[in-house]
Amino acid sequence: MITLASDFGTPYPAAMKGVLLQRTDARLVDIAHDFPRQDVRTAAFWLREVLPYFPPATHLVVVDPGVGTDRDALVVRAGDHTLVGPDNGVLLPAARRLAGNADRAEPALIDEESLDPVEPTIDQSESDTHGQHPSGGRSKTFHGRDVFAPAAAAVHEAGVEALESLEWLTPTTPAVDLVLPSPTLEDERAIGEVLVVDGFGNVITNVPGSILDDLMRVRANGETVPVGETFAAVPVGERLATVGSHGYVELDVNQGRGDEAFGLEPGDRVVLKPVPDSDD
Amino acid sequence: MITLASDFGTPYPAAMKGVLLQRTDARLVDIAHDFPRQDVRTAAFWLREVLPYFPPATHLVVVDPGVGTDRDALVVRAGDHTLVGPDNGVLLPAARRLAGNADRAEPALIDEESLDPVEPTIDQSESDTHGQHPSGGRSKTFHGRDVFAPAAAAVHEAGVEALESLEWLTPTTPAVDLVLPSPTLEDERAIGEVLVVDGFGNVITNVPGSILDDLMRVRANGETVPVGETFAAVPVGERLATVGSHGYVELDVNQGRGDEAFGLEPGDRVVLKPVPDSDD
Amino acid sequence: MITLASDFGTPYPAAMKGVLLQRTDARLVDIAHDFPRQDVRTAAFWLREVLPYFPPATHLVVVDPGVGTDRDALVVRAGDHTLVGPDNGVLLPAARRLAGNADRAEPALIDEESLDPVEPTIDQSESDTHGQHPSGGRSKTFHGRDVFAPAAAAVHEAGVEALESLEWLTPTTPAVDLVLPSPTLEDERAIGEVLVVDGFGNVITNVPGSILDDLMRVRANGETVPVGETFAAVPVGERLATVGSHGYVELDVNQGRGDEAFGLEPGDRVVLKPVPDSDD
Repeated sequence: MITLASDFGTPYPAAMKGVLLQRTDARLVDIAHDFPRQDVRTAAFWLREVLPYFPPATHLVVVDPGVGTDRDALVVRAGDHTLVGPDNGVLLPAARRLAGNADRAEPALIDEESLDPVEPTIDQSESDTHGQHPSGGRSKTFHGRDVFAPAAAAVHEAGVEALESLEWLTPTTPAVDLVLPSPTLEDERAIGEVLVVDGFGNVITNVPGSILDDLMRVRANGETVPVGETFAAVPVGERLATVGSHGYVELDVNQGRGDEAFGLEPGDRVVLKPVPDSDD
Repeated sequence: MITLASDFGTPYPAAMKGVLLQRTDARLVDIAHDFPRQDVRTAAFWLREVLPYFPPATHLVVVDPGVGTDRDALVVRAGDHTLVGPDNGVLLPAARRLAGNADRAEPALIDEESLDPVEPTIDQSESDTHGQHPSGGRSKTFHGRDVFAPAAAAVHEAGVEALESLEWLTPTTPAVDLVLPSPTLEDERAIGEVLVVDGFGNVITNVPGSILDDLMRVRANGETVPVGETFAAVPVGERLATVGSHGYVELDVNQGRGDEAFGLEPGDRVVLKPVPDSDD
Repeated sequence: MITLASDFGTPYPAAMKGVLLQRTDARLVDIAHDFPRQDVRTAAFWLREVLPYFPPATHLVVVDPGVGTDRDALVVRAGDHTLVGPDNGVLLPAARRLAGNADRAEPALIDEESLDPVEPTIDQSESDTHGQHPSGGRSKTFHGRDVFAPAAAAVHEAGVEALESLEWLTPTTPAVDLVLPSPTLEDERAIGEVLVVDGFGNVITNVPGSILDDLMRVRANGETVPVGETFAAVPVGERLATVGSHGYVELDVNQGRGDEAFGLEPGDRVVLKPVPDSDD
């Protein structure tokens, strides 16, 4: 099984799928292709939260603002999973979680020159004008198709136990790490950060949901809101704090957008203080 | 085969697919994940119109404004098909149509406590901060992943003929029904309603297309428009009434948006009167 | 393998998939369903660029502003590939490229009356009001479901080598051709056109990338911009000319939108002149 994730929209992911299917019969599953453009951190968060629900697979990830520069291309073994993508940190939070601990994530460098080149079916004599296709099968601007897809197909075909048989892989230390920010947890408050806002407008913080245990209300950046187990704990249109499906504190609105109601976006600071039951 | 439909956007459907693929090798087919948010009626309409074109399958449906409340989770057998989703009416119009008549749709209640819990691959020692994952494998806010996907996988594996072997299913009567509105058909006019507006802006009513038989023109909410067999029966940008692919009267614009031209949205009343050929 | 491409958005492609899966076990792969509405030229461009990366397959293409008119329905054999779609030109640039040269693209006319009709599972006694489903299984407005999907399934099942065994196919000459515009290449300048703007805002022209060989700068419609091998050759937010992944000159902005920065949209004229290194 090969999963695909990118910020490409359409139809670029289809070109990656074509290349994969030239080389493997693997099942292909889309994670998302509408990650915010060139936003490595948001993609890293979602991959860390979603990929652990999959059975062992090869995960092809292309959110790649440095495409065509000298940033490296990586394969990272993480337990029974393998990730393939650029060396910009996007793979690492998911890899650490899939590996179970940091020691077991095993990154390797792709020697791009040694991959079988990608060849479209083109005859120079066909009648439409056509472009100058990249020599050696590698464009400078679409490594998803020309580098990462061939590498992912080869990794899938080799299998996670036999990555060392791939001569174009060399163990390495990634040049760029990415660790999603940790909250500061004090007795009287938690100081965290908005990690992402999902498509519903739910504001997902990095504060563990356990701080809401047994609370009826919480003060979020100075405003007191009810704590609910679910959106429907408050009337439609009302704000609440809840524990989201990832296990973090979320600031939400029942059937509305939490980001707008709370005025928060990714990267913003969030201070949460418990409100004792007797306190108004 | 398991189909998936939701109002989740991305990447939440991928988490459902991961859970499914942990438990089954079934083919997965997306119906849509951009249904209007928490709009049970629109989803119910599309499922009723689209699912009958599929071979026998398990249909996983999550449009669920009441997630985390005490609304029940259902499996509905409908002929050779099975639907899995919340007890809010969203499954029932499709189930009745797939079953062929109302008597053969057989709803059953899911005992959520008895499902195998969903377990992501997480080691508490991994280095990124992580949330407080739901105990017992069931979040309060993402039953698509934690309840409906495991149930759909188990239903698929059991097969539609052996649902009674699933001990966590109990025959039930749904708490919430949903019957899409019927038009009033009189000799001189039809009084109907806009069911949905599709992505092209076509206004799909609940009035059977047969009322347009042999008509050249029809009066729609007081305005006379030509009746055409197809959009291209009128010039680009012009309005028409036609029989859409679902068999209902649609109010459309050739290569334009009917909803804007007619000023109509879902739920609006539509009165259609035949215009005799001799009448201006 | 059957690929699907359309301008349908959702959920209409799911109805096509249901019909296909009633008739074949083929793998289904989406190319895109968000092509600009009824924009035959843009779809033809993307199909020409993306389909050659696929292994031999049947390609179902529905961008069809003339649906329901007397425009014909085509099957076009192109080398080891087969394309199925309307006779409006959308298939032909891809077919010529897949065939390797124009002579080997072999179009055939679909006799729609001879296809097995599409039948949803509907019992007239079911309780919801329903529409008047198209007689003979063919709506006037959704040939993707009712004509092209059944044809694509049959073509796939027959195999590309046995298309002549399909009695409902007759060799034909397409009524509508589409040749994407060619640039004028002079010694001192290239006069081309914007073919499409991709989702990143990259302006893809029809000028072969080779004209940028060994150039540091180029004048594009009178404005001098650097030539870079990749977006990151210029600072974030800056304009550049580059050779895109299709081999054409693109006018881009690093991590920004080239269409807005250059004020260009599809169909606009683009004049490119080399700027000698010594020239300011």
